[in-house]
Amino acid sequence: MRLVVIGGVAAGLSAAARARRLNPSLDILVLEKGATISYSACGLPYFLSGEVKRQDDLIVHTPEYFQTERNIQVRTGVEAVAIEHAKREVALASGERIKYDRLVIATGAHPDLSKVHGSDAPHVFSLHTFEDAGRIAQFLARQKPTTAAVIGAGYIGLEAAEALRANGLRVRVIDAKADVLGRDDAALTKQVRQHLEKFAVPLQCGVQVADAASLPEQMVLLATGLKPNVELATAAGVKIGRTGALEVTDRMETNLGTVFAAGDCAEAMHRVSERPVYVPLGTTANKMGRVAGANSVGIRERFAGIVGASIVRVCGLGIGLTGFSVAQAKREGFDPVSAHIEAKDRAAYFDGRVTRVELVADRRTRRLLGAAITGEQGVAGRVNVAATALAAAMTLDQFLDLDLAYAPPYAPVWDPLLVAGQQLMRVLDA
Amino acid sequence: MRLVVIGGVAAGLSAAARARRLNPSLDILVLEKGATISYSACGLPYFLSGEVKRQDDLIVHTPEYFQTERNIQVRTGVEAVAIEHAKREVALASGERIKYDRLVIATGAHPDLSKVHGSDAPHVFSLHTFEDAGRIAQFLARQKPTTAAVIGAGYIGLEAAEALRANGLRVRVIDAKADVLGRDDAALTKQVRQHLEKFAVPLQCGVQVADAASLPEQMVLLATGLKPNVELATAAGVKIGRTGALEVTDRMETNLGTVFAAGDCAEAMHRVSERPVYVPLGTTANKMGRVAGANSVGIRERFAGIVGASIVRVCGLGIGLTGFSVAQAKREGFDPVSAHIEAKDRAAYFDGRVTRVELVADRRTRRLLGAAITGEQGVAGRVNVAATALAAAMTLDQFLDLDLAYAPPYAPVWDPLLVAGQQLMRVLDA
Repeated sequence: MRLVVIGGVAAGLSAAARARRLNPSLDILVLEKGATISYSACGLPYFLSGEVKRQDDLIVHTPEYFQTERNIQVRTGVEAVAIEHAKREVALASGERIKYDRLVIATGAHPDLSKVHGSDAPHVFSLHTFEDAGRIAQFLARQKPTTAAVIGAGYIGLEAAEALRANGLRVRVIDAKADVLGRDDAALTKQVRQHLEKFAVPLQCGVQVADAASLPEQMVLLATGLKPNVELATAAGVKIGRTGALEVTDRMETNLGTVFAAGDCAEAMHRVSERPVYVPLGTTANKMGRVAGANSVGIRERFAGIVGASIVRVCGLGIGLTGFSVAQAKREGFDPVSAHIEAKDRAAYFDGRVTRVELVADRRTRRLLGAAITGEQGVAGRVNVAATALAAAMTLDQFLDLDLAYAPPYAPVWDPLLVAGQQLMRVLDA
Repeated sequence: MRLVVIGGVAAGLSAAARARRLNPSLDILVLEKGATISYSACGLPYFLSGEVKRQDDLIVHTPEYFQTERNIQVRTGVEAVAIEHAKREVALASGERIKYDRLVIATGAHPDLSKVHGSDAPHVFSLHTFEDAGRIAQFLARQKPTTAAVIGAGYIGLEAAEALRANGLRVRVIDAKADVLGRDDAALTKQVRQHLEKFAVPLQCGVQVADAASLPEQMVLLATGLKPNVELATAAGVKIGRTGALEVTDRMETNLGTVFAAGDCAEAMHRVSERPVYVPLGTTANKMGRVAGANSVGIRERFAGIVGASIVRVCGLGIGLTGFSVAQAKREGFDPVSAHIEAKDRAAYFDGRVTRVELVADRRTRRLLGAAITGEQGVAGRVNVAATALAAAMTLDQFLDLDLAYAPPYAPVWDPLLVAGQQLMRVLDA
């Protein structure tokens, strides 16, 4: 029996590795369009910033590793152009046809360039693949640009802005939408703007750039979000869901029996709204891949879904998000109320810095719906506590009952999460 | 109506402040035996280490603050010697008698010196009160000792050892029990011993010191644990529980109707074992005080209990604990299995350091029972995620479904918590 995996980054290799662990005798073949597999896409901005010295440090494993250590065959530079499911065959660009018994589609996503012209100009870049990062690094080294515009204030855009700033460029960030990080949260946007201003990086929201090449900056980075790579799958009869990404069950099955999908090409269930969403993130891709790999060899595992937990560093400011903002929660049919506080992230006498915590809850059920946390320290831990509370479907009352660890070097005696919870309780009970 | 609170540190002042917020007209009087109120007892080691420059920085509020800003009268240097509940009176050492309608007992705890002689020698100290810390600082400044023995490897003992080391002393830590931090966890003890050895601090466990003054060190610190201050209460007819601390309901009521107890003198319910335990910690004291204050003015609030979440820094190593170790879980009647892993706490290419995670679960119910996490970074956040999972009574399966935030500066793509969970799953399913 042969498992073919299309895509050799996060989801695809997780699927292959999991299938191998569960089935030592399976024939496993991974097809990767690009030249490099198994790299940390999320690490690319830190190669550009110089915090990661060598681009190859971002590569976790080579095809040789998978062959010798895992008995998984990986072919790079190989593009699948069609899936003929009736024949259980994948057609490659070379004309070669590859038989499969089980198929995992992990084709990932591509930068959404549909709303902007000029993406093919030599000084206009995306930062999505390993090769993209190499091209940008080369451009920075050879052309020595002094100014850059980043279009898009999502994760990649903000991380890239920090990286370019670290290279000494004057940087501007422009986004067509009113708010950053796709969060629909004016207070958060304001805070990010004020923070970026300290680094002389203007943040211009609500500005639609029609032609990237028309901007005065010597370098332009397009980070206007991702679109799932679904064409190969849909041409073969795989259904897409309401988000435009591939529709999957909690076992990562598509509508075609023995074809699974995972990672940035697929939807995930949001555990707060219980609706499918499209939130392409590396950690989710790994988990989905793992589940797809298990089910592809007949082991029933399920992917529980996501609570939209994420963190990004923007010029030293940590921004942790999970669940929904007020505006998002309204759109999902909740009756949200929120409260935010600013508090020290450690004992005040112990180098405590200001952290901001916003919590969102549903007025009717009192269930916690979301959290936004910003600060210099302790943001990851606190957003993960909130994400765990969301996964447990905690009410605000249950959240306030949490027993959190305290010691002066790490936290204040009343954790900012609980201070925010107490504030939200006052709003809820008012 | 008058509320009298005996004790003016964490629990007592939390009770008074909460009562005031809920009842603006109540007459509130706080009686404190010591000279100083409202100080961070947990911060005392960091005053000794020099990380907190002035001892007064540990004082959060003064009696004047409570009088003018909260309309709460605080009397310091006042010792309550008897409670005559039939008369609703507290008798002071001075002979004065104070009437109350509601009483909150927040008498705290005292260092357990029952098993060691020599505690009254001039070079032998405890580190429990504000005054203790002042005495130690004075001794260090005037006597300039070069060697110190710390008896007791609990939180205070290990923090004090770090602080004395920071003062340039040669330090040895001795504990009568086999393991550190009251955890009953040989692997943790081994790790702490190895870590302390890097700082030339020997850790000698299983050694009972009969006479502290007989040790060769020029300074001895007794940190052999705390005993609840219950004599005042029990003489008045307040019941003690199985732990020896005051027995309270989840509303912090004692068996005497209008008398409440909170903080280090009282028991708390452990949410994993659902049995009362004695775990005197500052954050718990604050929460219990808050609940006692609310109920003392007739507002029904409950204290949900604890999951034993704590964190301590030992010579730069963070140690986060929650729930039970395997040995403790066995004693509580569970059938525990555990697994531990070592993993990088961030992406390996992003200055990831080794963190160790041990998870404990019940074989029968698969419920998570405890976690022990050590490392240089990210320990507080991870132990709090585990504590949140314990509060939600998650099974290991539910824990593995967590969606945790990922970005290279903060975490690896598979969080060490989840890696440990996967390892434990293999053990459970073996």
